[in-house]
Amino acid sequence: MEFSERISSLQPSAIREIFKVIGDPSIISFAGGNPDPRSFPVEQMSALAENIFKNDPVTAFQYSVTEGYPRLRRLIAERLSSKFGIGSENDDVLVLTGGQQAVDLTSKILVNDGDTVICEEPSFIGALNTFRSYRANLVGVPMEDDGINVEKLEQALKTEKNVKLLYLIPTFQNPMGVTMSDSKREKVYELAKKYGVIIFEDDPYGELRFSGKDVKRIKSLDKDGIVIYSSSFSKILSPGMRMGYVCAPKSILAKMTVGKQCADVHTNIFFQILVADYLEKCDIDAHIEKIRALYKEKNAAMLRALDERMPSFVKYTRPEGGLFIWCDLGDGFNTNDFSKKLISKGLAVVPGSAFLMDDKAASTAIRLNYSMPDFEQIDKGVTILAQTIGEEK
Amino acid sequence: MEFSERISSLQPSAIREIFKVIGDPSIISFAGGNPDPRSFPVEQMSALAENIFKNDPVTAFQYSVTEGYPRLRRLIAERLSSKFGIGSENDDVLVLTGGQQAVDLTSKILVNDGDTVICEEPSFIGALNTFRSYRANLVGVPMEDDGINVEKLEQALKTEKNVKLLYLIPTFQNPMGVTMSDSKREKVYELAKKYGVIIFEDDPYGELRFSGKDVKRIKSLDKDGIVIYSSSFSKILSPGMRMGYVCAPKSILAKMTVGKQCADVHTNIFFQILVADYLEKCDIDAHIEKIRALYKEKNAAMLRALDERMPSFVKYTRPEGGLFIWCDLGDGFNTNDFSKKLISKGLAVVPGSAFLMDDKAASTAIRLNYSMPDFEQIDKGVTILAQTIGEEK
Repeated sequence: MEFSERISSLQPSAIREIFKVIGDPSIISFAGGNPDPRSFPVEQMSALAENIFKNDPVTAFQYSVTEGYPRLRRLIAERLSSKFGIGSENDDVLVLTGGQQAVDLTSKILVNDGDTVICEEPSFIGALNTFRSYRANLVGVPMEDDGINVEKLEQALKTEKNVKLLYLIPTFQNPMGVTMSDSKREKVYELAKKYGVIIFEDDPYGELRFSGKDVKRIKSLDKDGIVIYSSSFSKILSPGMRMGYVCAPKSILAKMTVGKQCADVHTNIFFQILVADYLEKCDIDAHIEKIRALYKEKNAAMLRALDERMPSFVKYTRPEGGLFIWCDLGDGFNTNDFSKKLISKGLAVVPGSAFLMDDKAASTAIRLNYSMPDFEQIDKGVTILAQTIGEEK
Repeated sequence: MEFSERISSLQPSAIREIFKVIGDPSIISFAGGNPDPRSFPVEQMSALAENIFKNDPVTAFQYSVTEGYPRLRRLIAERLSSKFGIGSENDDVLVLTGGQQAVDLTSKILVNDGDTVICEEPSFIGALNTFRSYRANLVGVPMEDDGINVEKLEQALKTEKNVKLLYLIPTFQNPMGVTMSDSKREKVYELAKKYGVIIFEDDPYGELRFSGKDVKRIKSLDKDGIVIYSSSFSKILSPGMRMGYVCAPKSILAKMTVGKQCADVHTNIFFQILVADYLEKCDIDAHIEKIRALYKEKNAAMLRALDERMPSFVKYTRPEGGLFIWCDLGDGFNTNDFSKKLISKGLAVVPGSAFLMDDKAASTAIRLNYSMPDFEQIDKGVTILAQTIGEEK
């Protein structure tokens, strides 16, 4: 059988293959990006669900509109505006089936075969694979401690052909945990404007800050209608319900709506109502504070263990929020091989190569997740990591 | 802003624009494809949901695997096998975000720009728009009372270039309500095999038979691994939850899984568990019997009203199941204009042009839905239709 060109070149993602291994309870996983299950407000959601079944089951079970449940769209728009200064009268909110669908629909409406998408390098494998599935030309721009290298970004914008999209995770970046500085956000916005490129600001982790000073969202600078802001409820309520959203110019959303209609008609309406009820009747900010406190402790535990046990040549980031630490083992390590060795010792991590534009390249780094493992696993996993590094050197 | 070629040519679907009008309670709608709300087993689903919240909320709220909840996949596979003789050891089941996603992912993995997709003409607008979004060359083959015209199908298979897919709704077709005969199913299967084309058997309505003799699914003939069978729980449990599935050769599903990972990672897992529990603990066949009895009555009511009030030049189908009657008003009617006039009289229908390969062509037919309106609305709506036809002639 002959498959399409777009799918023939795509391989199942490295993360996904690792996910299969980590079903094994004897393996400690720093590999996933799963929230701590304690972050799910199960009791509140249960009570709200019971009410939906009692009061308005027909709306929750019937077909609904592609744009999303109107009350939820309004509540999201109000929250984005009041908390982050996001959204002008030219913008609107569209409810999507998880943050992943935002990347998919953005590619669908903007990217022709061979068009260029510029990304931070390394970047989120799920987004990179979606761009690949639209046969985009992926161009990576190196990262620094305060976000993307702005000079190299301008060079790429100047020299690459048919640049349609600048894909950024400015806050607690996946996989590096790095946050782009306010001054860089302004520069990046001006560059995108100058070169006529749409910014996709992917912000699934932005609310998970546990230290440092808040930064403004790039979307809050958007006077020119060039930023698609994407976030989701996956990291603050539940990833399993697949509930994301974008705030973007209405002209863009009109096209995304047509694309979504072709993709899945609309997002699960029961959970759209549930999340709207949650936003109206519960205190989501207080809930987020609890998650922040939890991840602050877990992040500190992992950093403490790394500080104690890593040899000096190993460098790692110290995130102010989010789910990930990026750990560079330095010259001589090919982490594709090294991560296989770690699995045989009982620890799963994601090799850095998964996050590169060239998915056949090697990397000396690994991504470590601290939201999912418990404190004992964090400690034990870092010990396995240190021992295995010791055996290699 | 410059949008992609694939999205620039796509217009919001006519049905969707009509959906907006029918939010108006003063308009009787024969336009949608919504199930009767009485078909939603709310009480049972509510009890099952309560149990999930109590017993296994973490699984229901956490990330899950792209292929779908293993227990649900097994239950679907068992039901397909025992009820319809569907599925060989080379096949497997993939859970999807509604039947629409099956069409989307099939296009993604099989259709390059300009490749041909052969469809029954008229056919389901949601599928046609998805094929268009992959820039497929749509080729329509006319319908007869017992399904697609087989001679013209062979001619199309012989003469069209790069035919990748044969899209069929063999049972209670949308929009015509027609069912393909057993003998034609065998001929169509042999033709697809002869010309090396994959069949997409779209079967959302197959369980909704209220009269006549059961037919075998084309997939039950599939000894050669050339049929993708797609169905969903939208018409038997709830469309709002967006829960569909395909049964297809494993080599095809492997590619669809990669595509789904890029599209939405996985389908809402809470509802996957809920549907699995429903299949295990409730009697879905007894529930379906109730829906059949309901639609049998509604279909009979609409046919009775049409028989009484339509002038003799109007021809309409007499479906043995499903949701739709296809009504051809005959020469002299352009139903794009006529359906606008109907709306001004208080009745919404979908003009036949929406279901044609050339979406700019005119049609003399309209599609009538009887599952959503109540008995009074069916009667009143057909009266409006008869009066408005009378004014035109």
